[in-house]
Amino acid sequence: MSTIWFATSNKGKLIEVQERFSHFGVEVEQLIAPYPEIQADTLEEVVEAGLTHLWKEHARPLMIDDSGIFLDNKEGFPGVYSAYVLHTLGCQGILDLMHSDTERPAHFECCAGYIDEKGQVLVAKGRVDGHISKEEKGTTGFGFDPIFVPEGHDRTFAEMSLEEKNKMSHRSRAFDKLAEMMELEKD
Amino acid sequence: MSTIWFATSNKGKLIEVQERFSHFGVEVEQLIAPYPEIQADTLEEVVEAGLTHLWKEHARPLMIDDSGIFLDNKEGFPGVYSAYVLHTLGCQGILDLMHSDTERPAHFECCAGYIDEKGQVLVAKGRVDGHISKEEKGTTGFGFDPIFVPEGHDRTFAEMSLEEKNKMSHRSRAFDKLAEMMELEKD
Repeated sequence: MSTIWFATSNKGKLIEVQERFSHFGVEVEQLIAPYPEIQADTLEEVVEAGLTHLWKEHARPLMIDDSGIFLDNKEGFPGVYSAYVLHTLGCQGILDLMHSDTERPAHFECCAGYIDEKGQVLVAKGRVDGHISKEEKGTTGFGFDPIFVPEGHDRTFAEMSLEEKNKMSHRSRAFDKLAEMMELEKD
Repeated sequence: MSTIWFATSNKGKLIEVQERFSHFGVEVEQLIAPYPEIQADTLEEVVEAGLTHLWKEHARPLMIDDSGIFLDNKEGFPGVYSAYVLHTLGCQGILDLMHSDTERPAHFECCAGYIDEKGQVLVAKGRVDGHISKEEKGTTGFGFDPIFVPEGHDRTFAEMSLEEKNKMSHRSRAFDKLAEMMELEKD
């Protein structure tokens, strides 16, 4: 196996995952193929439904992922609705929501999924804990990166190089686990 | 027709709709029957899918509704996700989100639907414009009522009697239109 399709329209995600799979000597190719995101309580459900849908349409092994940011003191908001909230409120909306909060714990979760030629599904989860910054900082990455400071650091994901972020990100952790489940071997 | 089933677990909604249909000499009975809410862009889609699902399960004419609050300066957030946002952030979350906003326009929308014995679907929409108050006020009603001030008034929905709110609410307007489409006649 030397090429795997990754269905995403998000260039930032693509680059992260390409970097990750390069350690296994695997090339990741982008597949532009929208799929319906079901309303579900968990990222896993969204990913499993998406994989099955895409596999029926494109009949080839492929990967997708879904991720979200969870504010630990706000019942996990926005969680599975992160994309919607990013689109409507943006990072500033999260800062506004927390304007009077001194405790600001949050975590990112990513669920990465792979469906093989037989329609067999593998899913893996990755998580990174941290907190929400007081203001937006940095320009790299995407999504809520400018307001998320991972544990043990004092800079946001958007202030880090892709390489530095990839060492600890929820997405890296999920795709590393997925690669392991796919029995890929590190170069 | 003298009794119609209304599938809802929300006592506040039930009372509103009962009051409304009493003007048509129709009794509204509560049906406790949960149904999946699909992830959709519009209230109509949620209602149509819910009606079809319930009709298959319960094989009787019935009504449901779905409603949301839309912040006009926040891309319509939380809209179809209002129930989730009420549960996670509550009214206080909306106030936090708007803590620095002087312009605070918002509207409520309700989509009411009816499915008849043959599975034929009718849907009607109601809307009320207004703004978000600076703090929670009042104790009647439910949901986001304590922070919504309808146009032309200076009190929130939660500071009004059910009768006063019902004269102008999005839900009343939707169910009045629905009653008209059902060809019910006012007493």
